[in-house]
Amino acid sequence: MYDIIIIGGGPAGLTSAIYAKEANKSTLVLEKMGTGGQLNNIFTITNYPGFDGIEGFELATKMKNQALIKGAEFKNEQVIDVDFSSRIKKVFTSSGVYEAKNIIIATGAHARELGVEQEKEFYGKGISYCATCDGNFFKDKVVAVVGGGNSSIYDCLYLSNLVKKIYLIHRREEFKASAGGVSRVQTIEKSGKIELKLNAVVSKLMGDDKLKEIELTNTKTGKKERLQVDGVFVAVGRIPDTDVFEGKLNLTKDGFIQTKENMETSVSGVYAVGDVREKVLRQVITACADGAVAVSSIVNKD
Amino acid sequence: MYDIIIIGGGPAGLTSAIYAKEANKSTLVLEKMGTGGQLNNIFTITNYPGFDGIEGFELATKMKNQALIKGAEFKNEQVIDVDFSSRIKKVFTSSGVYEAKNIIIATGAHARELGVEQEKEFYGKGISYCATCDGNFFKDKVVAVVGGGNSSIYDCLYLSNLVKKIYLIHRREEFKASAGGVSRVQTIEKSGKIELKLNAVVSKLMGDDKLKEIELTNTKTGKKERLQVDGVFVAVGRIPDTDVFEGKLNLTKDGFIQTKENMETSVSGVYAVGDVREKVLRQVITACADGAVAVSSIVNKD
Repeated sequence: MYDIIIIGGGPAGLTSAIYAKEANKSTLVLEKMGTGGQLNNIFTITNYPGFDGIEGFELATKMKNQALIKGAEFKNEQVIDVDFSSRIKKVFTSSGVYEAKNIIIATGAHARELGVEQEKEFYGKGISYCATCDGNFFKDKVVAVVGGGNSSIYDCLYLSNLVKKIYLIHRREEFKASAGGVSRVQTIEKSGKIELKLNAVVSKLMGDDKLKEIELTNTKTGKKERLQVDGVFVAVGRIPDTDVFEGKLNLTKDGFIQTKENMETSVSGVYAVGDVREKVLRQVITACADGAVAVSSIVNKD
Repeated sequence: MYDIIIIGGGPAGLTSAIYAKEANKSTLVLEKMGTGGQLNNIFTITNYPGFDGIEGFELATKMKNQALIKGAEFKNEQVIDVDFSSRIKKVFTSSGVYEAKNIIIATGAHARELGVEQEKEFYGKGISYCATCDGNFFKDKVVAVVGGGNSSIYDCLYLSNLVKKIYLIHRREEFKASAGGVSRVQTIEKSGKIELKLNAVVSKLMGDDKLKEIELTNTKTGKKERLQVDGVFVAVGRIPDTDVFEGKLNLTKDGFIQTKENMETSVSGVYAVGDVREKVLRQVITACADGAVAVSSIVNKD
C-alpha cells in the first residue's frame, strides 16, 4: 500500500514524485517504457527556465535522479487495468497489483497517425513520428514533414541541419505554430532547403521495401502531385494515453482527462497531470507545475 | 511600443520573457529591484525539477540570462501607475511612460507583518522577514521564528545550521506546512535546538537600540510568557504587490489578481502570473508555468 502511485515517468510524473517525497509520502512510479516520456523526443529544449539549451533526455535524467535521491520507488511495468471504485485504488500491471490512497495519472499523449494506407507497413522504413529520434537515418536525403503546429516547425528546424531537402506539408494556408518558429522556417525556405506545400495532404505512400514516393492532394483544387522522398516525418498532433481509464473517469471527446484546477479528476483521490489532461498549454514547464499542484492537493487533503 | 511589457522580474516574469522572445515578441521587463524576486530569498531550492539543490539567486540568474540571450530588454524602474483603459496599455514609471499591446503582471507578493507595536522600529535591529538574507547576523544567538506554514518551517531548517536556539512560535496547534518539513523540524526539536511554542502569538517587542525580549500570549489560556531573543524571523504569510492595480482589475479581498485559466485578468490584454494571482499553489515551478501560459495566450490572440 502506497500513499501515492504515479502512472507515467515523464516530466509531470517525475515532478509529482519529487514533490511527493518532499512531502514524505510513500511513492511508486510505474513507467511503461524508459523515464522521460515525450521529453526524450526533444533534442534540445531551450524554453525550460533554468537551462539555456539542454537535451530532453538529460533533463529527464536529472528529474529522475532528483526523485530517486529523495526516495521515490520506480518500476518498469505497464498498467493494464485500474479499479478506482473504492477509497483504496488498485492498479493492475502485467506483473501484479498495487494499492494506493491516491493515484496521479501522468501517462501523456502519443503521436497521431496520418491515416493513409500502408502507413503501418512503412513505419521504420521511411515513416517516422519522431524527427529527433530518427533524423540521423536521413542524412543528406530528401524528406517531408507533415503538420502545421509547433512540432512540425521544430522538426523542420532540427532536420534542416541534417537532410538535403525538406518539403513542409500542411493542409491549411496558415500555421498554428509560434511566429518565431515560422519566421525561422521561412528564413531557411529562402535558401531553398525547405519547400512549403500548403493546402496539401499526403494521400498515398509508395515504394517497395522502403518508402520512395508520396502523393499529395491539394485540399482546395483536388490536384494531385508526386514527390520523391526518402522519409516522412509525421507531426499532426497527439492522442492522450487514456485507454485504460475509459469509463472510469470523465474524459473529453478527444480522450483527454478532465480535471479541476487542483488536478483532481471526476473521481476523488485520482489526479491527472501533464499532457494527458485537458489544459490550455502542453509544455514541459506546465507539465511539471501540474505535478506540484496534484501533490499539494493530496497533502492538503490527507 | 512593445508587444509585451512584463512588470516584475521574478520566476514568473522571467519565464514570460523567455517565452515572449521565443515567440518573437518585442519585450520589456520592468523590475523594481534586482532580478529574481522572492526566489532570491530561497537559500537552496530542492524541488525545482532539474536541479537537485541550487541557490535561489543562481537559478534566477540562469533564467535572466536565458531571457537576455533571446533578446529581452530589462529596465530597473518602479511602476507607479498604469492606464489599461485603451487597447494600447500605458505603464508609468519614475523615469517615463511605456506602451504595449499586452501587459503581463508578475509583481509577486511580499511578507506580511506581525502587526505588533514597535515592529517597524525594530526592523533591521532584530526583526527580519527573510531568514536566508539575515540569518548570518544571528550566528550562535537565540532567535524566534513565527508562523505555521512552509516558510516558517524552512526558516527553522535554515537557521538551525547557524543559530544556538530557535523558538518556533505558531498561533495554532497544527502546522499548515508539508509533513516532510514538519517531521524534519521535529527531529531537530529532539536535539533541543528548536523549542515549539504552539497556540501562541507575539504580543510585545522589548529592547533598546536592539530587540532583546518578546512577550508571547497563549491564544487559548491568555497566559503571558517572556522569551529572551536576539532576533525574530517573521513568516506569517504574504501580501500581493497590487496597490498600483487597485480599481483597474478584479482583485480578491486579499488583493490577489483574479485570472482565467489562460492567465488573462478582467481586462483584455492584461495578464497576471505567479504569486500575485489568485491560485491554488505558489511555487517557483507554478510561477514559471503561468508565464508560459500567459505568453501562449497572447500568441494565440495576436
